[in-house]
Order: sequence, then structure tokens, then C-alpha cells
Amino acid sequence: MGYKLLEYVVMENKKRILTGDRPTGRLHIGHLLGSINNRVRLQEEYEEFVIVANIQALSDNFDNPGKVRENIEELLCDYYACGLDFNKANVFIQSEVPEIHEIFIYLSNFATVQQIQHNPTIKTEMAQKGINLSTPLGFFFYPIHQTADILCVNADLVPVGKDQVPMVESTRDLARKFNKTYKVNLLHEPDSLVGTEVNVPGIDGAEKMGKSLNNAIYLSDSEEELRKKVFKVYTDPNRIHATDPGKVEGNVAFMYHDLFNSNTEEVEKMKDMYRKGNIKDMEVKEKLFLVMNEKLTPIRERRLEAEKMKGELLARAIESSKKVSNIARGVADSMKEAMLLNFKN
Amino acid sequence: MGYKLLEYVVMENKKRILTGDRPTGRLHIGHLLGSINNRVRLQEEYEEFVIVANIQALSDNFDNPGKVRENIEELLCDYYACGLDFNKANVFIQSEVPEIHEIFIYLSNFATVQQIQHNPTIKTEMAQKGINLSTPLGFFFYPIHQTADILCVNADLVPVGKDQVPMVESTRDLARKFNKTYKVNLLHEPDSLVGTEVNVPGIDGAEKMGKSLNNAIYLSDSEEELRKKVFKVYTDPNRIHATDPGKVEGNVAFMYHDLFNSNTEEVEKMKDMYRKGNIKDMEVKEKLFLVMNEKLTPIRERRLEAEKMKGELLARAIESSKKVSNIARGVADSMKEAMLLNFKN
Repeated sequence: MGYKLLEYVVMENKKRILTGDRPTGRLHIGHLLGSINNRVRLQEEYEEFVIVANIQALSDNFDNPGKVRENIEELLCDYYACGLDFNKANVFIQSEVPEIHEIFIYLSNFATVQQIQHNPTIKTEMAQKGINLSTPLGFFFYPIHQTADILCVNADLVPVGKDQVPMVESTRDLARKFNKTYKVNLLHEPDSLVGTEVNVPGIDGAEKMGKSLNNAIYLSDSEEELRKKVFKVYTDPNRIHATDPGKVEGNVAFMYHDLFNSNTEEVEKMKDMYRKGNIKDMEVKEKLFLVMNEKLTPIRERRLEAEKMKGELLARAIESSKKVSNIARGVADSMKEAMLLNFKN
Repeated sequence: MGYKLLEYVVMENKKRILTGDRPTGRLHIGHLLGSINNRVRLQEEYEEFVIVANIQALSDNFDNPGKVRENIEELLCDYYACGLDFNKANVFIQSEVPEIHEIFIYLSNFATVQQIQHNPTIKTEMAQKGINLSTPLGFFFYPIHQTADILCVNADLVPVGKDQVPMVESTRDLARKFNKTYKVNLLHEPDSLVGTEVNVPGIDGAEKMGKSLNNAIYLSDSEEELRKKVFKVYTDPNRIHATDPGKVEGNVAFMYHDLFNSNTEEVEKMKDMYRKGNIKDMEVKEKLFLVMNEKLTPIRERRLEAEKMKGELLARAIESSKKVSNIARGVADSMKEAMLLNFKN
């Protein structure tokens, strides 16, 4: 009992972090370097909540629920493989916390239609997918639904890339408006935790790595798949012979070296040789494969382990969802009280 | 036990009706003749659900939660006064059924932004209130939230005025799309139950009676207030002397006679005399006051009775909300199963 109490006190002092993903596909090295590694670090210092946003994933995959369903377990395996500790981080499933929907409804009076249309995510996705008035409502309002994810655990911090800062600002705005309107100090205004931006280009040289672009190296890729992909990465298209001077800038092989090869001296030496036409593409790639494989092998192995304990991981996530549901129930009830929606007293 | 079972079977055979109001003000004679009397009749034949839509009321009154809170009890008193039997009709409070919000989220993938903008209610209200991009999101999507009210109890019928038929159509549409997408026969497509339209003009001759128009006769009005209002009703503004021939068309005194005076022979005779300048306005109004007071006195008396049992009525509504919450939980769980969001099996 004394121990439990102590643990509770410690948890109380830890700041809360909310982060997560939509379960729409397996994670790739872009996710690993862009967010997951960061989360693994943060789980030590913070009370971390990691949402598997399956309801939001359905908002643009509603006609393919099987895809979303399968990718929940894939995502859990990826998390486990990367070192997310399910005993430390609260990995939970959005659909198991219906209080999020309720909180969203309460917040929706403080968001405007304009605010959504100006949301950078919706703007970008509308531009990409050519979305218009036939946009499903669920997809249209998901930026506001996201604010409910954050507020349902009263998160202190949200780790985001620069492009997602407006989403956190929007959350702060709604929390502030709610508190002001009902003269309460209830909803926590979260801060953005903007880390160093790590951009991982696709193997084809595209700025972003993505499933739909078919240019990703997945954490679940076998050694053989990794090798194949590494040897296919975009280098300098104008370099025909190994003796031609080559370009290092925009050369994915070197960009990956910069990201994965900790021997910077070796990398700089190879770049120099490449520029002078003193090294073959194949050599650079062979070296790259070795360093990437070294970093990815333990993840791959842990992922195979995870595959065998999918059911267990899911059960842990459901358990955490109950914990989150309790926290969210508390938040929703306090909001109801502020809005004079409580009938118990 | 045998009795209970029998009751259950009977209930199962009864068709379900969903109807209700936003608790934003006391009810007036327009509500009485337009919908409440109808509900009192329907409670005998159907399994009736009457929603007190306080969450939707907040969507355009979010900065005045006290108004919505107070009007819940006022509405319950009005219902009781008009003869809604809380043992027959399931009068429930929207905020006590959070499953509605969840069901709304599941439905929202099947509604489009366009569909909302074309919704007749939103259109009218946007025209009336000059709403634009600064429209709160909660108000913007409430026509779709309403469909969740209907579907959460799998209603068979929705009593509506002609102008609300598109809302029921929208509900049918969402139910159909959901069922089709997930290859289930789950959500019930409700039918509109369009009764004879009863339009009650305001005492000032305006087409509609409304609180904001300050032209309403409330069910809670005292006999004295009723008398004052009846003697103020709009008649023929061009008639100066009782001997002037008067116009019966658009004359509120005669419109109310048509609605409240069951002695049609007397009414026709008065109309004839009025046209010929053989009857004073005062006489017509005195007669009108008598017949209206006769109809409204029992309601007024029951309302005074209801005032004393507000707490009891609220408790009954909360009890019914629990019943509805259970039904809605079942619907939401079936929807989750269809969307592969169930993790229990």
C-alpha cells in the first residue's frame, strides 16, 4: 500500500504527454526517427499517453474497417519493437474511450466552421485529396476531435512537428474559451513540444516517406527486403560511371547515412570520394545497408517477438484504455458540471 | 413475472416514436396544438420517446447554460400539464444519454458537409440569424446530431411538420448508408409521421408564435395574463367602429376561435355578424377568452400541480434516460461490431 501510494505521488508530479498515430499502416523508418524514438525517450520522464486513433482512422477509411482493425495490432507490434514500454507508456485505443466523443461535443460549441477550414492539416489534405463539399463530416471535423484526445487526459505537452503546432494552438484556444465561458479553471492548456525536425526522404528521393507513395522502409521489413530497398535508393541520376563525380546533395544514400551512420568521419570521407568519383554507388549502399541493418535488426527481432504476443499487447492496450476512460470520465463530468448538466446534486 | 413478460411482449409489438423539444423556453399554445396534443394521443398507441434536447439547446445557448438548465424543469412541467403520462411516454434528457454522441460520431462519416449546408433547418436558421463561417461547429452539425437521437432508440416513426421531413430523410439516408457499407441490417430507417399542420399565429398576427417575438400565449400564463393577451389580439386594423364591416381573414381573434371554439355554428354566426358590422370586437374577444380559458384552465391547474413536483418529474426523466441509455448502448455496440471496433471476442 505504501509503495502504491508513493508511485501515485510520483505519477502526479510527472507531466502528462499525449501522442499517437492513426492505425492505417505499418510504421516505417520515417516514423521511427520522426516520432517513435522520441516517445521512447519521453516515456522515462513523463506520464505518457499514446493514442491509437482508430476512430479518426475510420474517418477517411470508413469503407475499409478491416484495414483499420488489422493495423491496430500492427501498430502495437511496431511500438513494442521500437521500445515503447507498455508498463510505462499508456498505449490506448481511441474507440475504447467513448468519453472522447462526448468531450468533443462539449468543445464543438467553441470551435467555428472557419477554424476548421483554416486548420493546416485539413487544408493540406484537402489540397492533396481534392476534397470539397462532399467531404464526410467526420473527416471535416477531425481536427477538433483531436483536441478532445488531448484534453481528455488533460495533457501538459503534445510532441509535434512544426506543421502541427496550430493544432495544439487550437486546443489551447478551445480550452481557454471553455474555461472563460463557464468561469472555471478546468481544462488544461497544453504546450507544444517541438523537437528537432527529422525528415526522412523516401527511397525514391521524394521528400516524404509514405505507404501510398510506395517508397518506404518498414520496421517490419525483413533483412532481405531492407537490402533490396537500400540498393534501390535514389542517388545521383546523372552519374553513369563510378568514376564520374557525383552529387551528394539530394542523394538518398547519403541522407540515410547522415541519419543512421554514427561514424560521421567515415560518412564525410565517403561523401568526399563520391564527389571526386572515387567510390562506387554500390559501395556506399553496401555500407549503408550494414549500418541500417545494425540499427534495425534489434527492432525487427523484437517485432517478431511482438507478433507472437499480439493478443497480449492488445489486452494491455485495452487495459490502459480503461484507465484513460476513467480519467476522461472525470474530465467529461467536470465539464458537465460547469455547463450545469449535472443532475446528481 | 408472467405479467412483466406480457408487458414486454406488448411493448415489443408497439412501434417506436421519437419526438421532443429543446429546453429553451416555456411552451405556448402553438406547441400545444402543433405537437404536444398529438404526442398525448400517440403515447397510448406507441412506445413513445420524448427527448429533452438540452445538448442541442446548448449549441446556440452555450454562453447561457442557466437558461437551458432552468427550462428543462419548465418543459417537464409543460409536458405533465398537457397530459403526457411519464409512465407511458419515456421522457428523457439528452445529456444523460452520452451514447448519442458516440452514435453521432459513427454516423458522421456518412454525412457530408454539403448535406448539412442544404439542411432546411440550418438554411432557415442561417438566414434568420445571419450565420456564416463563424458558426459554432456544434450548431453547424446539429442536424446530423439529431439523426443520432432518432437512431439511438431505433425509432420507427418521427412525428414532424412538413418542413422537418428532410431531416427524417437525412436520417434514413445515413441509416441506409451505414447498413450498406457494413453489410448489416442494423439501423432502422424511420418514417416521417406528418400530421395535419396546425398553424397558430402570434397574438400580433405574425405567422408564428415565439418567445423572441413576444407574441405568445404560454401554457403557464395565469387567467389574468390570458385575458390581457386575448384582448390584445390582432383583428381588423381598418375597423374603427363596431358598425364598420370587418375582415375575418387574417383576424387572429377568429383564427383562434377556429382553433379553440368547438361550437362552429356560433363561430360562423359571429364571423357573419363581424363582416356585416353587427358585433363588437370586444364581444368576439370576450367569447374567445371564455372558450380558451375553458381549454387552458385544466392545463394551467395541472401545471401548478407539476410545479410542486418538479423534483419528482426530473427524477422520472432521469430514470427514463437510464432506460434509453441502455437501448442506445446496445445500438452503439452493434454499430461498433459492424465497424470491427469490438475487441471483446
